[in-house]
Amino acid sequence: MSVPTSTPELLRASVEQFYARHMQLLDDGDAEAWAETFTEDGLFALPGRPEPTRGRAALAEGARRAHTERLASHETHRHWHGMLDIRPQDDGSVHVRCYALVVATPRGGEPRLHRSCVCRDVLVPAGSQWQVRSRRVTRDGF
Amino acid sequence: MSVPTSTPELLRASVEQFYARHMQLLDDGDAEAWAETFTEDGLFALPGRPEPTRGRAALAEGARRAHTERLASHETHRHWHGMLDIRPQDDGSVHVRCYALVVATPRGGEPRLHRSCVCRDVLVPAGSQWQVRSRRVTRDGF
Amino acid sequence: MSVPTSTPELLRASVEQFYARHMQLLDDGDAEAWAETFTEDGLFALPGRPEPTRGRAALAEGARRAHTERLASHETHRHWHGMLDIRPQDDGSVHVRCYALVVATPRGGEPRLHRSCVCRDVLVPAGSQWQVRSRRVTRDGF
Repeated sequence: MSVPTSTPELLRASVEQFYARHMQLLDDGDAEAWAETFTEDGLFALPGRPEPTRGRAALAEGARRAHTERLASHETHRHWHGMLDIRPQDDGSVHVRCYALVVATPRGGEPRLHRSCVCRDVLVPAGSQWQVRSRRVTRDGF
Repeated sequence: MSVPTSTPELLRASVEQFYARHMQLLDDGDAEAWAETFTEDGLFALPGRPEPTRGRAALAEGARRAHTERLASHETHRHWHGMLDIRPQDDGSVHVRCYALVVATPRGGEPRLHRSCVCRDVLVPAGSQWQVRSRRVTRDGF
Repeated sequence: MSVPTSTPELLRASVEQFYARHMQLLDDGDAEAWAETFTEDGLFALPGRPEPTRGRAALAEGARRAHTERLASHETHRHWHGMLDIRPQDDGSVHVRCYALVVATPRGGEPRLHRSCVCRDVLVPAGSQWQVRSRRVTRDGF
């Protein structure tokens, strides 16, 4: 499909499909493919970090390191996005403010809520896909 | 966009966008703006209350009080809606039966599931928006 | 509506509506109606079972037994699907890979995360509805 800002229903469907694949790549440890769902100079700002992460190489490296740590701790993480407030902008970008949960499950144990966050993304079209130009995350309780 | 009951995909997209904004207003403590997402005489029935709340003034007052309590207890609440069974009615209203979670995070602590509920809403069109005419919530375990 | 693979937005809306009703039937203990959301020979493979469940009679019987056990233990279960990666196939079927949570609430208690899973479904059209031809579930931590 071509870039999906033509109608609100196509916009929402394409953004939700984008996040589903995006988060599954992250949780599956496919760090390079995940980094390519950002723009070349994509920015990711997490709470408690002195500087945001910038650019696909740094994004992939961070995702790879986090996945290695989860493997070492025998814990599975699942990122859930929800309550997506999606607002198309005049410049063709889309602003999304949504909630995010991280569900963590230790080997042999029951799942628990690891994080509750608010995520503010700027998405931009790239061919028939979306890419994240910037993501700013705030963590509840932090 | 105009009132979105013309197709199932526009209906779902508009209802999901409505709930995203509706819940973010509530969780952010914007009680007046949240109350305006109900009809003037909107009804909200919660379990364990002798009477449902009726009308925007009472709805806003309840939301404001709940938010003040959360600030005092240094706890953040996030309302998640999911599994939306959306059924358009002949009179132009829409019946929604969905699940709702409340995720609570204390300052400095980890998030927990505070409530698991089932929410039955009647939504009605108001210009290009939806409004809640009635909401009846049942709480799991209650 | 007729079978909804014509556009990505109708596809997503119809799949989400299908899952909402499908999971609410299961959690409400309507085992026969739930089994009818599978094809006649529908397959359901859960981790830790030696064989998958096959066919509506066996599916209904399993759902009925699980619901009876939950009633006996005074616990409510809610199945949440999220992060739906939806991929239409050339043969008219649809592949869905998504996350699934089971939220369990004991009578008089607070909810907890009971399961975090990944669910891979093959959906096929049946008139204006979807049906599950096969479901393969993996459980985090297992």
